[in-house]
Amino acid sequence: MKAARYYGQGDIRIDDIPEPTPGPGQVQIAVDWCGICGSDLHEFLEGPIFIPPKGSPHPITGAELPAVVMGHEFAGVVSGVGADVTGVSEGDRVAVEPYYVCGECSACTAGRYNICRKLGFIGLSGFEGGFAETCVVDQKWVHQLGDLPTDVGALVEPLAVAYHAVRLSGLKPGGTAVVYGAGPIGLVTVASLKATGAGQVISVEPAAARKAKATVAGADVVLDPTETEVGDAVRDLTGGAGADVAFECAGIDAVLASAIGAVRPGGRVVNVAIWGHPATVQMNDLVLSEIDLIGSLAYCGDHPDTIKLLQDGKVAADQFITGRIGLDDIVEGGFRQLIDNKEENVKILVSPR
Amino acid sequence: MKAARYYGQGDIRIDDIPEPTPGPGQVQIAVDWCGICGSDLHEFLEGPIFIPPKGSPHPITGAELPAVVMGHEFAGVVSGVGADVTGVSEGDRVAVEPYYVCGECSACTAGRYNICRKLGFIGLSGFEGGFAETCVVDQKWVHQLGDLPTDVGALVEPLAVAYHAVRLSGLKPGGTAVVYGAGPIGLVTVASLKATGAGQVISVEPAAARKAKATVAGADVVLDPTETEVGDAVRDLTGGAGADVAFECAGIDAVLASAIGAVRPGGRVVNVAIWGHPATVQMNDLVLSEIDLIGSLAYCGDHPDTIKLLQDGKVAADQFITGRIGLDDIVEGGFRQLIDNKEENVKILVSPR
Repeated sequence: MKAARYYGQGDIRIDDIPEPTPGPGQVQIAVDWCGICGSDLHEFLEGPIFIPPKGSPHPITGAELPAVVMGHEFAGVVSGVGADVTGVSEGDRVAVEPYYVCGECSACTAGRYNICRKLGFIGLSGFEGGFAETCVVDQKWVHQLGDLPTDVGALVEPLAVAYHAVRLSGLKPGGTAVVYGAGPIGLVTVASLKATGAGQVISVEPAAARKAKATVAGADVVLDPTETEVGDAVRDLTGGAGADVAFECAGIDAVLASAIGAVRPGGRVVNVAIWGHPATVQMNDLVLSEIDLIGSLAYCGDHPDTIKLLQDGKVAADQFITGRIGLDDIVEGGFRQLIDNKEENVKILVSPR
Repeated sequence: MKAARYYGQGDIRIDDIPEPTPGPGQVQIAVDWCGICGSDLHEFLEGPIFIPPKGSPHPITGAELPAVVMGHEFAGVVSGVGADVTGVSEGDRVAVEPYYVCGECSACTAGRYNICRKLGFIGLSGFEGGFAETCVVDQKWVHQLGDLPTDVGALVEPLAVAYHAVRLSGLKPGGTAVVYGAGPIGLVTVASLKATGAGQVISVEPAAARKAKATVAGADVVLDPTETEVGDAVRDLTGGAGADVAFECAGIDAVLASAIGAVRPGGRVVNVAIWGHPATVQMNDLVLSEIDLIGSLAYCGDHPDTIKLLQDGKVAADQFITGRIGLDDIVEGGFRQLIDNKEENVKILVSPR
């Protein structure tokens, strides 16, 4: 079968590899659609980051370069089930929660497997991925899509990232949130906030094309930080108090400082961004207002609720699909397109079949 | 009456000023003992910091240099009550929660008055302070000491700082905490943790005199960061998991990084220190383990529980009193002594009468 494998910076190749077959407790999925994630772009431009280099195999999968298949935002149709699989049948439309976890560490035993000390991602840390005609995963990572089409199913993963971050924020219904950045993760965060009952969602974004998308995603107000002092504007929009929560989806010092300055005393800042450098933080701003800065990583038990939001029409997923390509075009029509036209694009879906 | 007033860096004078009289709802206290706080030392060495400079009066008190009386860790005996004061009588031994708050901002109306936007401290932001023969405060800031002597009463304030930080940490009974720094705040944090049910308290401190004090305060283990890799040692002490919570009582980049590295995935780091510089933070360490970094400021409703801990003998307060002086000796025998012999001292109490 065809699969996109990572060989190093700027080097992704379409290889012909053996089709995986499901072992006991495993499910084989014929992949319909797999989205290209920002972390895929980072691997392409600056990696390997999460991908295990040659000589440093992943502790759970044993995979290392160059045998790593990419792609972790995928959905498809079940094409085979191994022994002992129940509740999943051939023909089911499913999305995948793309993890490898140890199951033994303190995080895993506490049910917070997304912060497993050995965490790996299908499509980054193993021999399997969504940029392939078929993919085999353990049944526990398979989530039924019901009537949802599989292109929307491929968006469940990034939406689950947002749903998880919103859950960690502890925002109460009717509360006010500020979302910094209207790239893919910022946009799904805005959509997830509105879908789950936020009262007022303020998007902060300087790029014109992204500002327009933030409004479509559901932002009540879009602030341009090059034109507006964001902290003052947020206080004006909240009766002087400040926002209840803020989401840092940019990984930029000035953005983090603005987020800390935009929440009310006692508010919470959720950092969703992966950073490329150490941050400079005015700790006294955290102290004097008892602000809580928490990191959010991926998802943990968030797929069912995320799928429900899509099934109930609480999130209009089509707005996030800005391109559809075949597997052979993944580098030029996918990675290069997203890098060169990042403001126009949100999510490009790849069909591997 | 005699009072110690701040005039600028290195310039604290004993002035003769009019004795304050209690207005309606106010209580006059004959101060028995007032401790010298680390923030007092910062004002002396680097200030004015919290003290309002000339021309920038505090928004609540209207006080500005040079009329600011210092001292906020004090207790004494009620020597007069104004009209409409109930439940407080002359002769009562009391400690003071030394605040000025606006009562109107979102934090105040939510009951979190310690993060009031206009917060001020008696002894830093007003005409009143504990380094004076008498002090007048609003009744709401007066806490009955019962049978506790007033020297122990002067320790209620720093202990309340620790009790508040422990409360914010959310540590469950039997859990493990790491306390970075065994200066005055680190020591009272260790004591407060043990008094409130922590299972294992690990103190991290390089100075020999302070290490010994940490053990007296109740630390189960004292780690010297110049001899031990703290993160590894904490994991060894916690079955590989990491601590549940850590307290940063130092305000040092490497300490904050160590604290983030010592807690388990999903753990919490409480920053108690006031920082003299921006911190460098590896945000990805917060993200990949979903660690929660929260600032803790002073206290809010923590005085009654703190007094109860002392009354019940859960904290042996005497260990923290390393000196007693008169008001006239406050600069040489107090401030200079604490600055020049900081590792030998914890709390020097000043008697203004």
